[in-house]
Amino acid sequence: MSDTILPEGFHFSTTEAQIKKAGRPDMALICSKTPASASATFTTNRIKGAPVKLCMGKIKSGRAQAVIINSGNANVSTGKRGMKDAHEMAGLTARYLRIPEELVYVCSTGVIGVPLPIERIRPKIPELVNTLGSADSIDVAKAIMTTDTFPKSSMRQIKIGQGTGTILGICKGAGMIAPHMATMLAFFMTDMEIEKNTLKKAFSEAVECSFNRLTIDGDMSTSDTAIIMANGMLGNRMINTHSRHYNAFKEALGSLARELSRAIAKDGEGATKLIEIEIKGAKKKSDAIKAGFSVANSPLVKTAMYGADVNWGRIMAALGYSGVDIKEEKIDIYMGDVKVVGRGVGAGNDNKAKKVLMKKEIKITINLNLGAEKATILTCDLTEGYVRVNAAYKT
Amino acid sequence: MSDTILPEGFHFSTTEAQIKKAGRPDMALICSKTPASASATFTTNRIKGAPVKLCMGKIKSGRAQAVIINSGNANVSTGKRGMKDAHEMAGLTARYLRIPEELVYVCSTGVIGVPLPIERIRPKIPELVNTLGSADSIDVAKAIMTTDTFPKSSMRQIKIGQGTGTILGICKGAGMIAPHMATMLAFFMTDMEIEKNTLKKAFSEAVECSFNRLTIDGDMSTSDTAIIMANGMLGNRMINTHSRHYNAFKEALGSLARELSRAIAKDGEGATKLIEIEIKGAKKKSDAIKAGFSVANSPLVKTAMYGADVNWGRIMAALGYSGVDIKEEKIDIYMGDVKVVGRGVGAGNDNKAKKVLMKKEIKITINLNLGAEKATILTCDLTEGYVRVNAAYKT
Repeated sequence: MSDTILPEGFHFSTTEAQIKKAGRPDMALICSKTPASASATFTTNRIKGAPVKLCMGKIKSGRAQAVIINSGNANVSTGKRGMKDAHEMAGLTARYLRIPEELVYVCSTGVIGVPLPIERIRPKIPELVNTLGSADSIDVAKAIMTTDTFPKSSMRQIKIGQGTGTILGICKGAGMIAPHMATMLAFFMTDMEIEKNTLKKAFSEAVECSFNRLTIDGDMSTSDTAIIMANGMLGNRMINTHSRHYNAFKEALGSLARELSRAIAKDGEGATKLIEIEIKGAKKKSDAIKAGFSVANSPLVKTAMYGADVNWGRIMAALGYSGVDIKEEKIDIYMGDVKVVGRGVGAGNDNKAKKVLMKKEIKITINLNLGAEKATILTCDLTEGYVRVNAAYKT
Repeated sequence: MSDTILPEGFHFSTTEAQIKKAGRPDMALICSKTPASASATFTTNRIKGAPVKLCMGKIKSGRAQAVIINSGNANVSTGKRGMKDAHEMAGLTARYLRIPEELVYVCSTGVIGVPLPIERIRPKIPELVNTLGSADSIDVAKAIMTTDTFPKSSMRQIKIGQGTGTILGICKGAGMIAPHMATMLAFFMTDMEIEKNTLKKAFSEAVECSFNRLTIDGDMSTSDTAIIMANGMLGNRMINTHSRHYNAFKEALGSLARELSRAIAKDGEGATKLIEIEIKGAKKKSDAIKAGFSVANSPLVKTAMYGADVNWGRIMAALGYSGVDIKEEKIDIYMGDVKVVGRGVGAGNDNKAKKVLMKKEIKITINLNLGAEKATILTCDLTEGYVRVNAAYKT
């Protein structure tokens, strides 16, 4: 039993079903003592894993009580058998937990296109139910890892009346596991009582400004899933958008989601540097986001960051092909605090900027000087390590 | 003087202006004895080099007689001075050639954001004019190279009446030169007489199905330029879209452009494999192109090809996020002749497919089974070599 602070009424367990290599936990169960309000966002990839399809149906109720998770196999492109396996995982978990099946969600991450080893998963479900409470959030974070190099979990607390509300977040990165694609999964749990639509609004805003502003390699997973459960066990007066605690909740949730998405960027495959691209002075918010992703996804910008190469021409080029209506002669670019481009031409500070690019965390600020909108996109550098992890080298 | 077959009336010269490292030719002049009909296509990047801006104005006349080219510096993001330098290159070339300035085009490729070393370029222009005829197409191809590892030039000939019409093509790849972005440049010359609008139509179709179906890393250059000149020195009856020789001309030009774009893909930075992605069964041509580029630009697909990893899940995922309206359960995927996905699920031939992926040229065929449209996109694998070339490693 762990002594980590947990939101009241949430319990965890993890185990090994040998879906990943032996010796690595690869299943986890998250369970609330009581049914919780819930909200979720999913990948917009048209190819979706069976668990995603299943959960997209369930979340319409706005209710959840448990999530059963496996890593090592994403159950994607597995046809009818894939749907049957996902249903079985939810059904067995519900039966052993003695709760309605519609309250049990399923998430899978790992290999695409290989049928789930359901025969190894099946017997582990009663074990997970029986050992609920034996794992802490870091154990869960470890059990859901694929190519992540460190577990990702954090929390926030806010004062609410006499009590303290807790929000816990656990996630894994958009990495790869040889030989196939993995997933971004994120689970949020809070003991505060939040009105259903309020929860949905706050969560979608939090995801929009964190996980949706993150790119490792521009490759969108077929399994990305973020779920929040609010079980109300704190006994607070229900929070809605008019409550005086709403802003504090919203800000705590947003800040937690941003912290976790930052951890994912930092742990991008082969990454040696965290890169933050801030676009300012855009006419529209959507322009800022589009321009930011164009720069963040450019292999040429990412390799330049890796090599600490003050290669602002590549940033200009990526802005130029972003599809955003920019004006070359208005663009300012900063690396850290060093201005490298002023009004579209070199500012002559490349030597100073080089020092900024030697650091482990790099902030690039681009002012389009066309309006007042802005957005920040997180990414990482592109290294030989990324190629090595993903080329698999099956010899 | 070279003995290569050239289209009649075209002469070349090259020289070293020490824009690139000493010992490497970095300037070339292409000149027709008489003014030629001309057509051109340019990068659609909103950030364009000064030479591109200059040429976009000139080509409206549909006439050209000479192109002055330098490699090692792209003259991009160089402000007013950049425009002045590009004008000076055209002006000096015209003066020494004694032809109108509006018939002289300028192309520059290499570093972005560094002013052109015009003082080293200026004195080389009379030399290039005086030595016209001393270089062959391979010399020109070498002089315009940046990170290309081999010169790219080829030709086609067609029977036309009693004579033989020749089309020559010379190009360089979308590579990088430390520390900044380079360009795709392509020059086509023919001695056939082609009506202006006919030339434009045939050329834009040829470019559309070759250079516009090619991606190395998804990063679009600020300088991409393709120019064709038809000087009519063969003395043929002018070809228009109704001529009986039009199809032969169009096919020869298209096939030449495809051959050259294939050479560019093969010579992509760090590339070890040429990859051809054919999308079939699309509802619309634009869907086929979009889906093809989504797969061709996926770093995960490209690293899998490098590692000979039969990772069709990554192809499914890239189709899924392409923005094209696909149906998972209809997709078939072949690697070479080996079916790896049938109706959206694994076909169980991964071991056979692995052998296909060990080859230097890989054809991936994807049938969306939704319609009759198709498109082929050329690309290369993503390797540690790409990262090394582009991270610059300035130590």
